[in-house]
Amino acid sequence: MSARVLIVDDLFPNVKLLETKLSLEYFDVLAAMNGPDAIAICEKGLCDIVLLDVMMPGMDGFEVCRHLKNNPVTAHLPVVMVTALDQPSDRLRGLDAGADDFLTKPIDDTALFTRVRSLVRLKAVTDELRSRAMASRDFGMGDPLALATAETGLNAQILMVEDRRASAERMAASLGQHHVVTLEADPHQALLTATDHAFDAILVSLDLAGFDGLRLCSQLRSLDRTRSVPLIMLAEPHDRSRIMRGLDFGVHDYLMRPVDRNELVARVRTQVRRKRFSEVLRGAVQASMELAVTDGLTGLHNRRYLDSHLGTLFGDAIARQRPVAALILDIDRFKSINDTYGHEAGDEVLRTFAERIRLHTRGIDIVARYGGEEVVIILPEVGLPEAQLIAERIRERVEMMPFSVQRATRSVGVTVSIGVAVRDPADVSAGDMLKRADLALYRAKAAGRNRVEAQAA
Amino acid sequence: MSARVLIVDDLFPNVKLLETKLSLEYFDVLAAMNGPDAIAICEKGLCDIVLLDVMMPGMDGFEVCRHLKNNPVTAHLPVVMVTALDQPSDRLRGLDAGADDFLTKPIDDTALFTRVRSLVRLKAVTDELRSRAMASRDFGMGDPLALATAETGLNAQILMVEDRRASAERMAASLGQHHVVTLEADPHQALLTATDHAFDAILVSLDLAGFDGLRLCSQLRSLDRTRSVPLIMLAEPHDRSRIMRGLDFGVHDYLMRPVDRNELVARVRTQVRRKRFSEVLRGAVQASMELAVTDGLTGLHNRRYLDSHLGTLFGDAIARQRPVAALILDIDRFKSINDTYGHEAGDEVLRTFAERIRLHTRGIDIVARYGGEEVVIILPEVGLPEAQLIAERIRERVEMMPFSVQRATRSVGVTVSIGVAVRDPADVSAGDMLKRADLALYRAKAAGRNRVEAQAA
Repeated sequence: MSARVLIVDDLFPNVKLLETKLSLEYFDVLAAMNGPDAIAICEKGLCDIVLLDVMMPGMDGFEVCRHLKNNPVTAHLPVVMVTALDQPSDRLRGLDAGADDFLTKPIDDTALFTRVRSLVRLKAVTDELRSRAMASRDFGMGDPLALATAETGLNAQILMVEDRRASAERMAASLGQHHVVTLEADPHQALLTATDHAFDAILVSLDLAGFDGLRLCSQLRSLDRTRSVPLIMLAEPHDRSRIMRGLDFGVHDYLMRPVDRNELVARVRTQVRRKRFSEVLRGAVQASMELAVTDGLTGLHNRRYLDSHLGTLFGDAIARQRPVAALILDIDRFKSINDTYGHEAGDEVLRTFAERIRLHTRGIDIVARYGGEEVVIILPEVGLPEAQLIAERIRERVEMMPFSVQRATRSVGVTVSIGVAVRDPADVSAGDMLKRADLALYRAKAAGRNRVEAQAA
Repeated sequence: MSARVLIVDDLFPNVKLLETKLSLEYFDVLAAMNGPDAIAICEKGLCDIVLLDVMMPGMDGFEVCRHLKNNPVTAHLPVVMVTALDQPSDRLRGLDAGADDFLTKPIDDTALFTRVRSLVRLKAVTDELRSRAMASRDFGMGDPLALATAETGLNAQILMVEDRRASAERMAASLGQHHVVTLEADPHQALLTATDHAFDAILVSLDLAGFDGLRLCSQLRSLDRTRSVPLIMLAEPHDRSRIMRGLDFGVHDYLMRPVDRNELVARVRTQVRRKRFSEVLRGAVQASMELAVTDGLTGLHNRRYLDSHLGTLFGDAIARQRPVAALILDIDRFKSINDTYGHEAGDEVLRTFAERIRLHTRGIDIVARYGGEEVVIILPEVGLPEAQLIAERIRERVEMMPFSVQRATRSVGVTVSIGVAVRDPADVSAGDMLKRADLALYRAKAAGRNRVEAQAA
């Protein structure tokens, strides 16, 4: 995937060298000679990935990285630290700062291109999600990016697929301080375990006895259930070509044996954060879509939801000749509650009313606030006698216990009138059924309220 | 990127051969020996890409392809047709059926892997969008997938970057029958044109005089403005390695010279459809998020939107010591309109009321339906005298012309009372300002309605 690569290095020859290499591979290259310039370019959204020199005067690479990773605007950008010496301590500092990977000078071309491409591809997949989540923020759903950036990456569920017992136990002990670790030596069983449980990251040894660990990685990347779970390969230094291959088809990271404990902990944490980052964004988009069909006061569905779902549901019932029932509920003398105790008390009554209704309805029922104090319930697969029973149970439940209002300092008796109707073979649309339920409700009101009335037989 | 590849071929040795090749490259392979089985696997969502043999007894490859591409559930799956003979007529039939590409037997491995990887990567980028859009359908926003699948791919804006005049004009003539074509011979100018206008597809010659067309492709793939515009390379047969490279970094398709007119038209159309498919899905997600903050009846923002934006807006005004004004509007004797003319007439009045308010507010103002017949307007950068003027203008506009109701068969006189307040240096939150506006509204009502009252000085 082509991308805009930002090279950050205070030495011009270093910039030039990387620029030439990347440009020949059809990457678009930008350069910054110091940390503040780099940060400014990233904040303007001008690049897709950052190659960041560690040693720079003033703000060093670690500080730049930390800055980028703590800012919701730039936290999603992959950062690859470029170090002169491959010191474990440097790696750790970088990982702590949130770096996604490392390259050691002199830079190996294959490693460079594989890494950049792999990180850019992973970014491309979440870019769409990120831009939807940013829109959800504009619509006033809080700031999912800030929330996502604040994720710690701890307390995760980790699956480790490794058949070298000593090594597995040593790694599990280190990871176990921050996460819950499941060990699995058999790759076939591991695939089942991975699809059956929700893991936050999976480590896979490439040197399993008699099995190519990379095959397991590719299966995990292919299956719907596991495709978004971060994968980390455990590899021997001589395994370079398989590592590159894995990164190329979407494995997220790798650890070289002998595995350094601290690096293990840091890399797993980075991957868990990355996964949760996406989850928070996805959740924000989902939540803001759900809001569109939810009544803000009661948490019930709103009229928009009822209108858009009832037609389909009713059409299905007609096609399959199945029963369906409608209840229209209206709180009795609601205006006088508002007038006597105030609007806030009225709101409290509506919330409690909704809670009591929920206790008597199923997941497949539609329960929607229809107007001010009116609720419509649609019951699929329910005939008239059962619908009347359900309505009667709700009516009793409302009457039985007074509603507490004004922060539980007072209580008020509430009753409800309910009209019941069921689908008739002659009905053309759901509106016909609702009309009968509305007429029944009218009769319930006329007959003195606090009653259930069903459509005329 | 790893993926589940479905091989469809009625001959077992053909299946076996492809399976072995793909498996060695760490793809997950499924097979179907006939069309109906293939369709069933696709509908169950078990694969990411389809390699489809043309010649099969019963349902042939074209028919299977057409079926997959016309079904909203499977239309997003890339389909590569595998043909024994590279007949232009076969290609055309395949493209007409919606195929994404072709491979000719005997299959060249590099071409196979490049094609499959490139198509799978493009799919991965839109998968997230697709699943959000499917959720929006579940929330009752119509069926964006069906809408997206019905897109024709015609009447598009096409940019053609080609400096061979005769060839350019010939291609433009063919495409011009279905689209609007812009010709550009200079690659530097083409980049500017592409970022300045919204094109639906861009064709780029790889043989521009003194310029590597692939470089232009990579720049177009990198820039935010053009990244999602489909790219098609125009290439000579000896250019195979650059074609593969282009596909690898995200170019969508290519045409081999001499360009067959019909194939040109078909491939451009496929790419335009693909782009619009994503746009429809993106629009559906966006729309369902917008609904969450929109009042269904009037189209104004709802209280949820006001509550979540007012705090930020007011905080900014405090920080920058800028004025901000609040208007609370309440239709006079609204209940009697409902009682006299019915609820539907009341709704018509609210809609007309909202329209008239819109005429007197700016894009930066917040206009939200607050309760039944109450609207709140927040005016940034507006002081008390100006706010009173705006309120007075709205009041006049409402009174001046009767509101037509009952489908324009009757009209009813409507008036509105308005309370006005502005930010005070002592205000801690927007609530303080709203409270003063509410008091002013109360005084307007008490003083006889159809009035504007401002907060006490």
